[in-house]
Amino acid sequence: MTSPTRERLVESTAELLRRQGYNATGVKQILAQAGAPFGSLYHFFPGGKAQLGAEAIRSSGRLYMSLVTDVAAAATDPVDAVRGIFAGAAQTLLETDFADACPIATVALEVASSDEVLRQATADAFEEWIDTATAYFVAGGAEPQAARRLALSVLSLLEGAFVFCRSMRTVEPLRAAGECAAAAAEAALAGAGPDDAPDRAARA
Amino acid sequence: MTSPTRERLVESTAELLRRQGYNATGVKQILAQAGAPFGSLYHFFPGGKAQLGAEAIRSSGRLYMSLVTDVAAAATDPVDAVRGIFAGAAQTLLETDFADACPIATVALEVASSDEVLRQATADAFEEWIDTATAYFVAGGAEPQAARRLALSVLSLLEGAFVFCRSMRTVEPLRAAGECAAAAAEAALAGAGPDDAPDRAARA
Repeated sequence: MTSPTRERLVESTAELLRRQGYNATGVKQILAQAGAPFGSLYHFFPGGKAQLGAEAIRSSGRLYMSLVTDVAAAATDPVDAVRGIFAGAAQTLLETDFADACPIATVALEVASSDEVLRQATADAFEEWIDTATAYFVAGGAEPQAARRLALSVLSLLEGAFVFCRSMRTVEPLRAAGECAAAAAEAALAGAGPDDAPDRAARA
Repeated sequence: MTSPTRERLVESTAELLRRQGYNATGVKQILAQAGAPFGSLYHFFPGGKAQLGAEAIRSSGRLYMSLVTDVAAAATDPVDAVRGIFAGAAQTLLETDFADACPIATVALEVASSDEVLRQATADAFEEWIDTATAYFVAGGAEPQAARRLALSVLSLLEGAFVFCRSMRTVEPLRAAGECAAAAAEAALAGAGPDDAPDRAARA
């Protein structure tokens, strides 16, 4: 099923979508970045740019989730994991001159009201993240409904901070959002002592 | 300085940027939506679509901030204001079939790494929101640094939830993020009793 050319097409598209979104990304640019001949795109993706875009979104979603779950697996507890994810995201932004944030959000906002196939691809990726984060917080001791609300809040803090960081060219929003996310995780998790939460939150 | 045609051009551009972003918005579509003759765009905006886009971003930023400060002015306290802003945003999303969220975020992500003039316009608008929210939380009793972190966190929660809501076509993320934002506000504000915060946060 997979070929090196096909993989390069998906990876190059994912990279362009992350940095500049869907509408600015042209077929010629994808082919040039992938070093692939023109015919290869329609050979592997008969649906053209839209089909390739949807696959790149799903592929990016899985890759980004595996990066995040690696950070979580290395953490001592869920609050530490949340801090690590925000710190890692800030580091990546600084290292890439504020280019590499969420691989899906730009496309999600562009297509939400205009392209149902691509919108669904972004929604599928986001729902997988939310389900995975929810299961992770449940495993950490949170009650299922609180875990889902925490997952939605932590991911919203991350996505929103990315918007401000990329626009303002500073990681300050990600640092503030990371503290807020850690405080929310601490409050929602069974392991959090009731006396710690206000101090943590007040520092955030 | 202002003319009805010029205002319609800015308003139509702002509306298109909010729903579909910058790259999908063409000059012909702007003129058609504004009911304006072709020559009017370059008459009022010699810099063309880029100049009009930058002005639409700044205009949208001010308009959106005035809507939010109206909600805050009607609230009994800052925590109530935060809840009201998220509830109002959810209502608007439902009423507009998930089209009308932040007027600036889509463009901000599209241009962050590719168009310095437009990026600066989005950054200026965001910085005005952050400064206004910070001053509001300081007036509500928060210490200045904590107020700024709270402003960044609340706005990140709002922007991030918009991404998920528009993609997934549900206001669930905005409801979860709103509870998290209210808990963070409660914890950061001097008026919040230290015993209330963990309960609020645990419910969020």
